[in-house]
Amino acid sequence: MQGYFLYFRAMETLDNRKKVEVCFSPYLFPLYKEEFDIIVVIDVLRATSAICAAFNNGVKELIPVPTIEEAKEYQEKGYLVGAERKGQIVEGFDFGNSPYSYMIDSVKGQTVVLSTTNGTKSINIAKDAGQVVIGALSNLDTLNDWLVRQNKNILCLCSGWQNKFNLEDTICAGAILDHLLATGNYRSEEDSSIAAKYLFLSAKDNIFGYLKASSHRRRLKNLNLNEDIKFCLTPNTAPVIPVLKGDRLVAIEADVLI
Amino acid sequence: MQGYFLYFRAMETLDNRKKVEVCFSPYLFPLYKEEFDIIVVIDVLRATSAICAAFNNGVKELIPVPTIEEAKEYQEKGYLVGAERKGQIVEGFDFGNSPYSYMIDSVKGQTVVLSTTNGTKSINIAKDAGQVVIGALSNLDTLNDWLVRQNKNILCLCSGWQNKFNLEDTICAGAILDHLLATGNYRSEEDSSIAAKYLFLSAKDNIFGYLKASSHRRRLKNLNLNEDIKFCLTPNTAPVIPVLKGDRLVAIEADVLI
Repeated sequence: MQGYFLYFRAMETLDNRKKVEVCFSPYLFPLYKEEFDIIVVIDVLRATSAICAAFNNGVKELIPVPTIEEAKEYQEKGYLVGAERKGQIVEGFDFGNSPYSYMIDSVKGQTVVLSTTNGTKSINIAKDAGQVVIGALSNLDTLNDWLVRQNKNILCLCSGWQNKFNLEDTICAGAILDHLLATGNYRSEEDSSIAAKYLFLSAKDNIFGYLKASSHRRRLKNLNLNEDIKFCLTPNTAPVIPVLKGDRLVAIEADVLI
Repeated sequence: MQGYFLYFRAMETLDNRKKVEVCFSPYLFPLYKEEFDIIVVIDVLRATSAICAAFNNGVKELIPVPTIEEAKEYQEKGYLVGAERKGQIVEGFDFGNSPYSYMIDSVKGQTVVLSTTNGTKSINIAKDAGQVVIGALSNLDTLNDWLVRQNKNILCLCSGWQNKFNLEDTICAGAILDHLLATGNYRSEEDSSIAAKYLFLSAKDNIFGYLKASSHRRRLKNLNLNEDIKFCLTPNTAPVIPVLKGDRLVAIEADVLI
């Protein structure tokens, strides 16, 4: 039987295609983090959608911070600071993570600080494992084209909800996976990746309807955030590539190789 | 906005239906383990399928142990002991976790000890959280009928592969969820549960084909275990309800309430 194993490993070694995989939650990230060059951090409702909207609206830099304490420190230094917990703006901050907060004139050319329940935590745990890039449905096609050009090992890290799996991030990851696999230059092995692709394929013709039952959509709907949800679930509203450089996100041109 | 939250919580409190949820991996179990009365441990390829086959073949009791060391201690005491790691029988043990190993005359009426890569570990972590019952495609309809009768809060715990998500356990969990939700007496809230149901619904007409790409199936196929795979993916071959009583699994009658 050992022979089969060796044959299998040998075939894997001969396969030159790069890997693209999906991790369902930051909690599971320690099981996946080896061997990836690029980590696509995804938090569709709403952090990474808001980040894409911000850069598309001319925000200069965005500093993601995991804790409210750090957000406060930046606020005291005079920065514009967004902070969200459990779907709501934290008292005393300029805004939360509604994309619309970042689509106003006063943020153009500014450095903005952001702390959210799930998204900025994912950025924080991913940053030592590989090059962080921001993914959302908002920048899907632009991101996909950019990722194809990179030809690196890619992990899609879904931010989930309080460390648990969520549907909207998984479907976004599935859309990325589906695009990369179709090029023939990428492969994936994990069942989480196969499932993300299956879920995307059954959702793609009606993402809004498919996610009707999703827990986070229900949660935001109860907070009267339907306009935000519609914006975040609409693909390709913000053709930007936000990447982490040092402690801050900046938008790079779509032809830059990293 | 607080008003929406209170209304939402109040509606939840008024809902008398029991919960049924899906946890994708033992690694995520700490995030789910509260509030469940029954934990359905699922390891389709192959531990829980083998356990169902064993009871269906007249095995009297089955002692699941997480470590090889404990398995050895039982062997020294004269027990029949199965031990599997990474899909293969551990050297020196009577058998691994092939269902066919437990379908022979010599195990009838016997107490058997079993240690496997994923399945027996799941049983071990679940046993303090609620009543453990064994789930597989092998005992699907019998288990579903039994669970409906219990009318308790139920968590389907997928054993996964080395703490990662796997497709076959998730599809089995989705089949249980789909059945319980259809009774109208159960509800589920988690996105993991919704995804498991979606995956089951797209797989159910051709489970064998659907899982062709799954990582564990590939793994076992490379170990020449195709007959085992076929057996484990065939529903309703073993109409048994194995539950954990103290340190051992026993089969109970389908009309017993716990």
